[in-house]
Amino acid sequence: MTDVVVGIDVGGTRIKSVLLTRSGDVLAEDTRPTPADASVRLGPALADIVTSLVERGGGESGGPSEARGPGEVREPGGPGEVRPARVGIGVPGIVDEQRQVGVRSANLGWHDLDLQRAFGEHLSLPFVVGHDVRCGLLAEARLGAAQGCTEVLFVPLGTGVAAAQLVGGRLWHGRPWAGEIGHVVVDPDGDPCACGLRGCLETVASAGAIGRRWSALTGRGGDAAEVARLVAAGDQQAISLWHNAIEALAAVISPVVAANGTQLVLVGGGLVRAGDLLLDPLREAVHARLAPAMRPAVAPASLGDRAGSLGAALLSLEAGGVA
Amino acid sequence: MTDVVVGIDVGGTRIKSVLLTRSGDVLAEDTRPTPADASVRLGPALADIVTSLVERGGGESGGPSEARGPGEVREPGGPGEVRPARVGIGVPGIVDEQRQVGVRSANLGWHDLDLQRAFGEHLSLPFVVGHDVRCGLLAEARLGAAQGCTEVLFVPLGTGVAAAQLVGGRLWHGRPWAGEIGHVVVDPDGDPCACGLRGCLETVASAGAIGRRWSALTGRGGDAAEVARLVAAGDQQAISLWHNAIEALAAVISPVVAANGTQLVLVGGGLVRAGDLLLDPLREAVHARLAPAMRPAVAPASLGDRAGSLGAALLSLEAGGVA
Repeated sequence: MTDVVVGIDVGGTRIKSVLLTRSGDVLAEDTRPTPADASVRLGPALADIVTSLVERGGGESGGPSEARGPGEVREPGGPGEVRPARVGIGVPGIVDEQRQVGVRSANLGWHDLDLQRAFGEHLSLPFVVGHDVRCGLLAEARLGAAQGCTEVLFVPLGTGVAAAQLVGGRLWHGRPWAGEIGHVVVDPDGDPCACGLRGCLETVASAGAIGRRWSALTGRGGDAAEVARLVAAGDQQAISLWHNAIEALAAVISPVVAANGTQLVLVGGGLVRAGDLLLDPLREAVHARLAPAMRPAVAPASLGDRAGSLGAALLSLEAGGVA
Repeated sequence: MTDVVVGIDVGGTRIKSVLLTRSGDVLAEDTRPTPADASVRLGPALADIVTSLVERGGGESGGPSEARGPGEVREPGGPGEVRPARVGIGVPGIVDEQRQVGVRSANLGWHDLDLQRAFGEHLSLPFVVGHDVRCGLLAEARLGAAQGCTEVLFVPLGTGVAAAQLVGGRLWHGRPWAGEIGHVVVDPDGDPCACGLRGCLETVASAGAIGRRWSALTGRGGDAAEVARLVAAGDQQAISLWHNAIEALAAVISPVVAANGTQLVLVGGGLVRAGDLLLDPLREAVHARLAPAMRPAVAPASLGDRAGSLGAALLSLEAGGVA
């Protein structure tokens, strides 16, 4: 029998999952669309993912009729048999990890949802639910670009902008909305934000916003990747938009670095595919705002869109103390 | 015998100290000028303060000839006898508390100073050295305005601007320069700062800077308290300068609140004597930059310039586990 866990990253549009051994080997992976009406259909989808991963990973799933806790794992049935001990689930929005409550997720359509109750009806294995961004950082800290760092600010730039932190080498949970740096106002006269304010960082510096602003500015279509290509090609409108995004990010990141003594700003999300075109000016803008001794490393995350599912698996390992 | 500790707050111009019981009673206090050439003369001054406090507090000091550890405290000599078990010392600048090293203090003239060695030659009692701002927050957390809060950003506005934080109810040490928010650039074209950059928060929003900027702007003398009086009286120049300071503070504080999930921004230092003239617009400016669910309380510290010495005493209690 192999000592494994399942990690599931529930996104607004798709669910990525992984069957992971304690030593960090991936035995199976899965990606599927997030069900419409996720608030009702997510539990069954999660159960189906676990079954499917275990089958593909060479084992058997713990079905509802044979539910058992992590201390009740059966003796190995033979070489290659896989029985996950726990499941970790990363979800977006505002998550109260201590109470295991989904405070709010616009994408998944829930509000103050008891996640243990909602998913527990469908999952026979013990599970823990975490915040997707904090899961991503956990994966980068254990398996990716934040290894060996104890004070890390992880900033994924995707549909939105969020953050998670390592403090003293440990994932910082704090209050449920800790990390919501996407909703710091950087331009009071800026674009309206879904949160009700105007000019939030997310309306300027997310991959989504860069694409939208480009379309609004030029009347041409094009996502953030297209804007990045035009920046590299020297397009002045694209450069101006890109520059604004980077300055806004630096204005929000720098105070956090100074207050927290961050040593590494780890940039993730889709926008980081732009590479040095993003990282070099962002590093320069952050450093220009901080006294020399405080200047952090600014580096790309290394696990891409697998960070969330890997981190959810690691969360279940670390929460469950699987030996 | 009374179970007591000594707390000493070493400032650039004066040293405040306190003899504190475990139950929070102050038995004696002392304020004296910081010796010139503090890097050499501070140790003897600290020893003299301990002796003086203990005499005034009704007890005897542990002189060099009778040094003993916290477990070797003598039996009580009689009612009212006071023998401090430990000393806590708060110092300014960049402090590495884990290694007990004074990384840098411009005011006290030291650089990478082994504080245990430097002070241990003169102090016969066990002692611990901490950062003055973190000591101040510890006092506010245990005895002052931060009681009952677990996620706190403490921002004293005095000669400079600094910060300390409670995370999960515990004082956050992190890397030595964590908290140096005074050296986040808020205006790249602003005044030169002692750190070598221009337009640091400290050059706009410290009590010292407000006085200096007022003098430079008007050619009239006047400190921050005078500027506050003029703000209250409706002076447009004073209001503009005050407003700039508050906007700069809010721009630096808000990202930290969002990233860390701060529930209370506790404002201290000399500038907080301006009361609601400072706190109301600062609260408004911070709240305007954050989505409603994230908006923290913004309140004044309550211990004034005693916070540092009280906190140093508490640090020695918490570090030493005095029962």
